[in-house]
Amino acid sequence: MAKKLSTKPPKGTRDFLPDAVRQRRRVVEVIREVYEQHGFQPLETPSFERLDTLLGKYGDEGDQLLFKLLRRGQALVSGVRDAAAHIADPEQLIVGRSGETAPGAEPLLSDFGLRYDLTVPLARVYAQHGGKLPAVFRRYQIQPVWRADSPGKGRFREFYQCDVDVIGTPSLLAEAEVCGAVSECLGRLGFEDATIRLNHRQLLAAFIEHVGLPLSREAEVIVALDKLDKIGRAGVEAELTAKEVPAEAQARLLDLVNEDTRLEQIEAALAGDPRAEAAIAELRELLSLVADTPAAARLRFSPTLARGLGYYTGAIFEIASPAFSGSLGGGGRYDGLIGMFSGKPVPACGFSIGLERILVLLEERGQATAEPRADVVLATSSKACLGQLPALAYRLRAAGLRVELHPKADSAGRLRKWTDDAGVPQLLRLQDDGQLNLWTRADPKTTDLLLTLDQALSRLR
Amino acid sequence: MAKKLSTKPPKGTRDFLPDAVRQRRRVVEVIREVYEQHGFQPLETPSFERLDTLLGKYGDEGDQLLFKLLRRGQALVSGVRDAAAHIADPEQLIVGRSGETAPGAEPLLSDFGLRYDLTVPLARVYAQHGGKLPAVFRRYQIQPVWRADSPGKGRFREFYQCDVDVIGTPSLLAEAEVCGAVSECLGRLGFEDATIRLNHRQLLAAFIEHVGLPLSREAEVIVALDKLDKIGRAGVEAELTAKEVPAEAQARLLDLVNEDTRLEQIEAALAGDPRAEAAIAELRELLSLVADTPAAARLRFSPTLARGLGYYTGAIFEIASPAFSGSLGGGGRYDGLIGMFSGKPVPACGFSIGLERILVLLEERGQATAEPRADVVLATSSKACLGQLPALAYRLRAAGLRVELHPKADSAGRLRKWTDDAGVPQLLRLQDDGQLNLWTRADPKTTDLLLTLDQALSRLR
Repeated sequence: MAKKLSTKPPKGTRDFLPDAVRQRRRVVEVIREVYEQHGFQPLETPSFERLDTLLGKYGDEGDQLLFKLLRRGQALVSGVRDAAAHIADPEQLIVGRSGETAPGAEPLLSDFGLRYDLTVPLARVYAQHGGKLPAVFRRYQIQPVWRADSPGKGRFREFYQCDVDVIGTPSLLAEAEVCGAVSECLGRLGFEDATIRLNHRQLLAAFIEHVGLPLSREAEVIVALDKLDKIGRAGVEAELTAKEVPAEAQARLLDLVNEDTRLEQIEAALAGDPRAEAAIAELRELLSLVADTPAAARLRFSPTLARGLGYYTGAIFEIASPAFSGSLGGGGRYDGLIGMFSGKPVPACGFSIGLERILVLLEERGQATAEPRADVVLATSSKACLGQLPALAYRLRAAGLRVELHPKADSAGRLRKWTDDAGVPQLLRLQDDGQLNLWTRADPKTTDLLLTLDQALSRLR
Repeated sequence: MAKKLSTKPPKGTRDFLPDAVRQRRRVVEVIREVYEQHGFQPLETPSFERLDTLLGKYGDEGDQLLFKLLRRGQALVSGVRDAAAHIADPEQLIVGRSGETAPGAEPLLSDFGLRYDLTVPLARVYAQHGGKLPAVFRRYQIQPVWRADSPGKGRFREFYQCDVDVIGTPSLLAEAEVCGAVSECLGRLGFEDATIRLNHRQLLAAFIEHVGLPLSREAEVIVALDKLDKIGRAGVEAELTAKEVPAEAQARLLDLVNEDTRLEQIEAALAGDPRAEAAIAELRELLSLVADTPAAARLRFSPTLARGLGYYTGAIFEIASPAFSGSLGGGGRYDGLIGMFSGKPVPACGFSIGLERILVLLEERGQATAEPRADVVLATSSKACLGQLPALAYRLRAAGLRVELHPKADSAGRLRKWTDDAGVPQLLRLQDDGQLNLWTRADPKTTDLLLTLDQALSRLR
């Protein structure tokens, strides 16, 4: 006898029981409807991609968080043999590399990786199928992604992203459209107090040079600055000191940039820096484009917002909610990524909503609705009548009702308890004499005797 | 410069462009609605499971077709080191084993496998969450599964299954309900000529013993018999001869069992065999249960149907269509599988529709509908007006319209061509004088000048 198998889902993943699936679907349907009203088209891509499609797009940390698929058959045997030679250098074995560097162990053991986000697959699809797509391609994609991260509150190893992107135009109307769509989603889902933080990738670069630091320091300095609202000025200073950023540069940076700094102040401080002026002009234009829409009330200039830099080249966004310390989603302009696959520069801009955190917040607010699992339970207390239930169920379903057929004859009391426990509003019982008996949860003291199916149909909702 | 990346999806997987996603969603929505009307509840499970959940459930071939995930970090380094010792025995390295046999290489290299079907995850979920689920659990699940198989027509490495199962009752009403639901799906999707082949696992066993063969030969003999309609009697005989089945047993088997054999003939031939009599009684009862429903016209006794045996214990079903040589789906009763996880026997019965083959057939029939990607293209021929488009789009969307905002000012002619190429029925152009100009594809010679947004809204559909 084999040992008893564990029946838990793998770490960081979840089983969604019926109420949870219904709640998730309700939220996804709201987002999908908004995206479609905004003229975005659905796209779906495979759950796994070639490893060389994924590696090197998400930084070193991203490479390590990829779930990779084992090669199959003889390729695996050869892979293990060759990989064994790399054991002296475990780092290379773990991270894996493709392209110009010497082949690491993983391309030998693995050929595919699970989807890590929805943006890199979009870039690959646009390069592959661009001729069949509109020159300006507005797409949305709602699918799971996988990351081998440590699970935490609202953080899973399998989770859904709801992305909306405009490919093929440098116009800031793209930014206005994705921010408008996300703002509308937040409104319809009841996140009245959620804001969209707004910054610009080129403004961050300008800050660094303005305080006398080389651009090569940008990433680490901005990552520290991004924590300002969580760890405060003293915390950021400690972090910058640890990174050997001179005290004078720290002071200039933190005097200029904090969550209260207005765009006008930045503009005055950086006057004469053409990069900063261009970025500020773009931010002003974007704010003007959404001026007469509900998105205007949500967009808020946030000079400390960094979005981990990554592949962004222009405006960047992030959803902030007073109810949640992390972000509910983010995005921005990324004019370089598509070109990595298509070989020519293609401008692009997108926004991604994280489904799981939205659901965590809705649940905390008690806004997770439970829809009854059926309209009526169809049953009988007579074994002899069981065989008539399928034909009766067929008639009720043909009338549009969701019918749960109970497969065992049982007493009226026990069938009422079953129906009540299930939260199903009505119980219809077939009696030996052919009469139908209707009981409703809302009026549990009463039952109605109905002679015919037609009479029952006219009473069931 | 790195070499140019391949932009094709991985072998056996597909990118679904917008029209394809819409078509898939239309079919899934039909199936989901039918399943919900039949009182089935939605379930979703993780894309990957522990390897020991999956291994040994699908036979040796299934084990080899699993996509397995590479362990991460230090566990992988140790795994490669230990796996290298197994290279002398590639078979063990490839197949992998858990449990009582000596540990093979794969449990060292891999810990999880991608979902191979929706039934084993259901069994695991029922064992894990059974207390939170109804004693009779009617669930449906529509999710992708993955198999490292050779791709072919309608056969992919990533494909969707649409499963419906009743757990927790031995009643044949479960069989009647899943067959009724699948029959209704086939009807609504336009497969008027599709049938549901019906047989019984215990009847297959009775055939084998009836012709004097030991039950240990059942699997191989039945697999050959199942090919009768494809390779004919002579072909089956050749296969049975190759398997060293005596000629007399072959003759008795093929005289008794073919697609034209009626249930009465089987009944007469196997009279006195209690197992055969019990199986025949169940088939008759099932046929009687669906008698007054549309499923009656689809169910057809098919004594050669085998469904690969596997975990089935009672009635078995398979969807056959004259338009397709393979099956469109199948199922049956499997009273042993759930108990492998829960430790106590739990009766169960299910049916699975394969989405991909349904879609292939709908496409061949030209029943793949193309919905317009938006209701209206909103654009302008004046650069100065571009900034007014977001507010105008907001108003149109608030009225329920799906609006594609065109981000570049262009001539009326080119915007009409864009709209026409896109298949969008209407184009609304904002003019410099603030007037709105409406053009419709259905009446391309005419354009209407509309002074106000309200006038436009009353005209747009």
